[in-house]
Amino acid sequence: MSIRVPEGDRIPRHVCDSCNTIHYQNPKIVAGCILEWENRILLCRRAIEPRYGLWTFPAGFMENSETAVQAAIRECSEEANADVVNAQLFALYNLPHISQVYIMFRGRLKAGRASPGAESLEIALFAEQDIPWTQLAFPVVYEGLELYFRDREQGNYSMHMGDIFRSPDRKIQINRY
Amino acid sequence: MSIRVPEGDRIPRHVCDSCNTIHYQNPKIVAGCILEWENRILLCRRAIEPRYGLWTFPAGFMENSETAVQAAIRECSEEANADVVNAQLFALYNLPHISQVYIMFRGRLKAGRASPGAESLEIALFAEQDIPWTQLAFPVVYEGLELYFRDREQGNYSMHMGDIFRSPDRKIQINRY
Repeated sequence: MSIRVPEGDRIPRHVCDSCNTIHYQNPKIVAGCILEWENRILLCRRAIEPRYGLWTFPAGFMENSETAVQAAIRECSEEANADVVNAQLFALYNLPHISQVYIMFRGRLKAGRASPGAESLEIALFAEQDIPWTQLAFPVVYEGLELYFRDREQGNYSMHMGDIFRSPDRKIQINRY
Repeated sequence: MSIRVPEGDRIPRHVCDSCNTIHYQNPKIVAGCILEWENRILLCRRAIEPRYGLWTFPAGFMENSETAVQAAIRECSEEANADVVNAQLFALYNLPHISQVYIMFRGRLKAGRASPGAESLEIALFAEQDIPWTQLAFPVVYEGLELYFRDREQGNYSMHMGDIFRSPDRKIQINRY
């Protein structure tokens, strides 16, 4: 495998020296879902790296052959044994510094039932005032929950879009648009 | 390279037999933009496979380290030497049968200026009644343009979401939601 610019391309790619196959590396999609039950939000405490021990709503890499909402529903099942009612698209965030696109949904937790999956140390339902804001796993989780509670307070959920990236001084920046 | 289920996973992956690196394959994002100028829409006639010779709005694979809107703007530049004014998120479509997610924007073509890039045989501005509907490259292009003209007629652009997939009898199906 070597790194070179294939003919007709403009970006260096991983190219196999024996068969000339180009192994493109593209942004990965993370699909997740903010689940609500009786005014409380389902969060999972991560049992895996990165951010072992910190909290997130269920989310993970979208797989081939599924849709974004199917991926979000699957993650709720895998990480929290949770079923989703009425999943709605809620936010699309670009994380260019780690080449991810986050597609967030919101929905209702079916029957209030959830329990930790293999990748979760524990799961819990949090009222807004009890959200562990300083113990969230990623800036995009913080951003998603903040948007969610703001929309909920206004009684009107809309579709959000933005970028989260690191500025040259390594600080996390958020652009909403 | 062999195909097997890594420990803790549930899906067969491409795993390197010598270094155990797992080569995940995930859905790719295609970013595109419907550009308007004086009531007409910019389309490009493809100079590459698949669908050589058929028409599409500028669109292509999102690259690492860019945002979706940056990718859409770059594709407009590469395929049609076109600059974009005021790009707005317009539609998110899942194409699970080919493991793609299409993120469509809409915007204004700056100064009405465009010319064919390396991947386009020609480019043209089409009024709605002149769109080559039977010569469009992909179902998602048809869908995007249809939604666009419907929104434009109603004087209100909204955010659309849906799936385009092949049913077991190989027919293309579209779900809007």
